[in-house]
Amino acid sequence: MEERISVVLASGRKSSVYIASNTSELSARLSSYGANVLWVMDEHTSQLLRPLPPIHVILEAGEPSKNWRNVEIILRTAVQEGLARDAAFVGIGGGVLCDMTAFAASLFMRGCSLVLVPTTLLCMTDAALGGKTAIDYMGGKNLVGTFYPARDILIFPELLKSLPEGEYVNGLAEMLKHALLTEDESLYRTFLTKKKNILDRDPVLLRTLIGLSLDVKAAYISRDPEEKNGIRQALNLGHTFGHALESLGGFRSWSHGAAVAWGIGRALEAGTMLGLTEPRFAAGAQKLLAMYGYDMDYRIGRGEWMQFRQNILRDKKKEDGHVHFILLEKQGIPIRRMVDEQMIQALVISPPLKK
Amino acid sequence: MEERISVVLASGRKSSVYIASNTSELSARLSSYGANVLWVMDEHTSQLLRPLPPIHVILEAGEPSKNWRNVEIILRTAVQEGLARDAAFVGIGGGVLCDMTAFAASLFMRGCSLVLVPTTLLCMTDAALGGKTAIDYMGGKNLVGTFYPARDILIFPELLKSLPEGEYVNGLAEMLKHALLTEDESLYRTFLTKKKNILDRDPVLLRTLIGLSLDVKAAYISRDPEEKNGIRQALNLGHTFGHALESLGGFRSWSHGAAVAWGIGRALEAGTMLGLTEPRFAAGAQKLLAMYGYDMDYRIGRGEWMQFRQNILRDKKKEDGHVHFILLEKQGIPIRRMVDEQMIQALVISPPLKK
Repeated sequence: MEERISVVLASGRKSSVYIASNTSELSARLSSYGANVLWVMDEHTSQLLRPLPPIHVILEAGEPSKNWRNVEIILRTAVQEGLARDAAFVGIGGGVLCDMTAFAASLFMRGCSLVLVPTTLLCMTDAALGGKTAIDYMGGKNLVGTFYPARDILIFPELLKSLPEGEYVNGLAEMLKHALLTEDESLYRTFLTKKKNILDRDPVLLRTLIGLSLDVKAAYISRDPEEKNGIRQALNLGHTFGHALESLGGFRSWSHGAAVAWGIGRALEAGTMLGLTEPRFAAGAQKLLAMYGYDMDYRIGRGEWMQFRQNILRDKKKEDGHVHFILLEKQGIPIRRMVDEQMIQALVISPPLKK
Repeated sequence: MEERISVVLASGRKSSVYIASNTSELSARLSSYGANVLWVMDEHTSQLLRPLPPIHVILEAGEPSKNWRNVEIILRTAVQEGLARDAAFVGIGGGVLCDMTAFAASLFMRGCSLVLVPTTLLCMTDAALGGKTAIDYMGGKNLVGTFYPARDILIFPELLKSLPEGEYVNGLAEMLKHALLTEDESLYRTFLTKKKNILDRDPVLLRTLIGLSLDVKAAYISRDPEEKNGIRQALNLGHTFGHALESLGGFRSWSHGAAVAWGIGRALEAGTMLGLTEPRFAAGAQKLLAMYGYDMDYRIGRGEWMQFRQNILRDKKKEDGHVHFILLEKQGIPIRRMVDEQMIQALVISPPLKK
């Protein structure tokens, strides 16, 4: 299996991305990690490995399980099984499971080896690469975590065949975000012209798209592995608005992808209002997102504003008490700007009737 | 206040060590961190700050409090006070408090700024510099943690005046270890010739000794910030034996320093038995350690061996199931070796009567 992407991240750790084209390629790679391995799966992904490996943990799936209690289950098992610093943790699952496994790996004996096998499109195309690990804390998403890149990321697009439709569309949003964040036209154009093949999950096309999407991410994170100089923050496009919306719905009403797509729409509109974003580009991008079924016209109710505002203010991207947003000048040219509270309100609240 | 040492550590983070010679120097520096600060203290060190700063946490002192529950108290306070990624955590206390504050700082929003004000000799001369953060877990010391160097380390030797005698001697052990780990004679010679002044805590002499001791540590850690290439492991001299002894006594019977001094003695003897250590150097070093009151002749009981052995096997420094020890060829020349189980037994168990 060939290395598709190699990128040097936090603490000089190298992450290698491999895209497997068949089961035996994937199995061969997994076997190569030897016996000194703790396997972390959820109820669903544990079905993929039969028989179950000797040292394993099976966690509950879903965002509510992304907490310290589950990280502790991983750590406790590692200690009980007598694993040492030279062990590897292999996480097989979606973003929640990969984030938790990576967080635990970063903490166990101050860091052991980490391999991620993402099983959702969102995780393949975004979460698994980049070294951000986290748990949710006190109602805040990813408030506690570390930067700890996986040594290997093994992607097997075949797994997407059985992914529920909602989960699949969820992942497309981050790919679309990457399409907007690169000046290279290929990803954007493919989304524009191959909607049917993409929604049909054409495996050959998906290999290409996942690779292109990760290329965009790799370009940003390699220049700013620990989000220190502002470059990596461009990847937060749509996320400050999106997180606030997810949080408003208690992380149940909105999928991450749908919320981010909506947030990108808000950022495009903010940029247009501020005269920073090319109006033609903004309109095209909004249309592209709508084409994949995202609700770009959604607005929150007036009564929800105070909570939404509080969610925004709690954002990690805050500096000196001000929240910064990623906007786009045009395709591939992000800029970071403070957006004034009144404008945020105008962007997210339903206009009064008859206006 | 002048920067005494500057060293680039994990993730390219720079740690600066400042040694204050009076209270106003220290206060001026502390005020410079502004309002966006969470102060972490224990019951004792909180007496040093009057009035207490607005955002603070006061934790219980002592090794048993080095657990996740207390790290959570720090994190929760930071979230409740609305701090963001640009906040600083300032930890004022001994090794336990500094390790926990640093661990929490490394996790909050994936890492905020960290300042340490060590108040014990052990922490001034060793723990505060180097970026190792941790909590104890399932009976194992420092099993869970991160590498996260403090931005600033503020040392005020004046604080040592009120340190209990046992705590003071505890810290001398790590300085003696540093004296053995450098070819530069100055630290070793000062210990040999100025015992009275050292035990009297002569402040001018202490400034020099703490600086020299940190120079030795800085030289090792700067070449291997995350303990990856074996260089930094030299600083574990005496620690594998020492930790196993501390753990045997439930971390109550032995202070860390006394256990480490004993462990250095065991390592010197191991090296001599293996023909690796210069016998004259080993004898001199044992004598120097004994001179400062450490019990170099202590041996564990036969009935304690199985537990001691298990403690050794649980050591973080294990690789492929084998525990490696740091031995010394001569002053300043450490080597890493596997020591066979029978030899470990011979080194730590009381000889049978009349042998």
